[in-house]
Amino acid sequence: MGDFMKISARNCFRGTVEDVEDGVVTSKVKIKIEMPITLTAVITKEAVKDLGLKRGEKAIAIIKSTSVMIAKD
Amino acid sequence: MGDFMKISARNCFRGTVEDVEDGVVTSKVKIKIEMPITLTAVITKEAVKDLGLKRGEKAIAIIKSTSVMIAKD
Amino acid sequence: MGDFMKISARNCFRGTVEDVEDGVVTSKVKIKIEMPITLTAVITKEAVKDLGLKRGEKAIAIIKSTSVMIAKD
Amino acid sequence: MGDFMKISARNCFRGTVEDVEDGVVTSKVKIKIEMPITLTAVITKEAVKDLGLKRGEKAIAIIKSTSVMIAKD
Amino acid sequence: MGDFMKISARNCFRGTVEDVEDGVVTSKVKIKIEMPITLTAVITKEAVKDLGLKRGEKAIAIIKSTSVMIAKD
Amino acid sequence: MGDFMKISARNCFRGTVEDVEDGVVTSKVKIKIEMPITLTAVITKEAVKDLGLKRGEKAIAIIKSTSVMIAKD
Repeated sequence: MGDFMKISARNCFRGTVEDVEDGVVTSKVKIKIEMPITLTAVITKEAVKDLGLKRGEKAIAIIKSTSVMIAKD
Repeated sequence: MGDFMKISARNCFRGTVEDVEDGVVTSKVKIKIEMPITLTAVITKEAVKDLGLKRGEKAIAIIKSTSVMIAKD
Repeated sequence: MGDFMKISARNCFRGTVEDVEDGVVTSKVKIKIEMPITLTAVITKEAVKDLGLKRGEKAIAIIKSTSVMIAKD
Repeated sequence: MGDFMKISARNCFRGTVEDVEDGVVTSKVKIKIEMPITLTAVITKEAVKDLGLKRGEKAIAIIKSTSVMIAKD
Repeated sequence: MGDFMKISARNCFRGTVEDVEDGVVTSKVKIKIEMPITLTAVITKEAVKDLGLKRGEKAIAIIKSTSVMIAKD
Repeated sequence: MGDFMKISARNCFRGTVEDVEDGVVTSKVKIKIEMPITLTAVITKEAVKDLGLKRGEKAIAIIKSTSVMIAKD
């Protein structure tokens, strides 16, 4: 991920935009990382436009480590 | 993931604990989802003990959609 | 909360859905924990459907410790 | 909570500090809202000092709605 | 910021509301801190009403330290 | 901020590392954006090393809009 990886967020995954669903202020974007993992993100619609996110586009999902929880069955 | 999946978080991934590093209050846990994806979580050490997280254990990583960002190269 | 409590989030509260208000992508859900505490959550509408959240239903509010702030008067 | 309530966070609960456990950078603070609810927060130790958080002190727990998840059994 | 600063969030910035854009459940609010910094917040529309946020109003942006990431070029 | 700005986070501010304080798992980093604004971040110590964050270094603070709250006096 080259220079881009120089972000403190420990979780950056390249993938493909699977779906974009716009609300009024927020949008829901699904990114397929690799079969069968799809991440769901809720971001501003403003960001969807700025990044030109559309189904099939390559994109990187970024998650700060403090936002990841862990569970066990 | 059965009944467990009944959580509003849209991102739940089964994986294996790869590493647990304890601080004083927080711990950093790495979960290998599937080759080559490893998620990094910062959670309380209290939770690490409650869940008995150890290298090699099965675990589920959970991320709320509002915590996922998207980037493009 | 039995097996369910095996999530790293340190804050899990059983309560009753008081109100669900749908937006386009997100929904706002109010959960009455016990009189007079009501938690407000903003989650995806997709999750509201998956969990079948409706006024009067039992539900559990979950909050990661790193998301809790503290203030004093 | 008077003027203080004029914060966009939809979840503000008055309670009493039950426990403070310091790490190096972060501290874990437990706030008893009302029997039997105790919220766990991970905040900077710097904030613990600034607010003078000690067992038995009154304090307010604040949680942004986008940080609240919902689950069902 | 006086007594108000007694919140554990380490990042509180006074500024002026630059823009409010309402969705159904959430609103997007831009706060100009000082030229040329503008912070973008996604909060509930309910909060926008409670605080009476309108273009030109004074307001304080609050960000928990665990929500701040760092990057380098 | 060039290509780098192509991240969905709406808040990216260039600044200078003012202070780095390491814990065991997490570190607290203060970034001076421009006089007199300093942002406080709690990130993994692992990220501090990867980015080579030291007092005086240029860095970018990134905050997702859903993590920004608003208050009024």
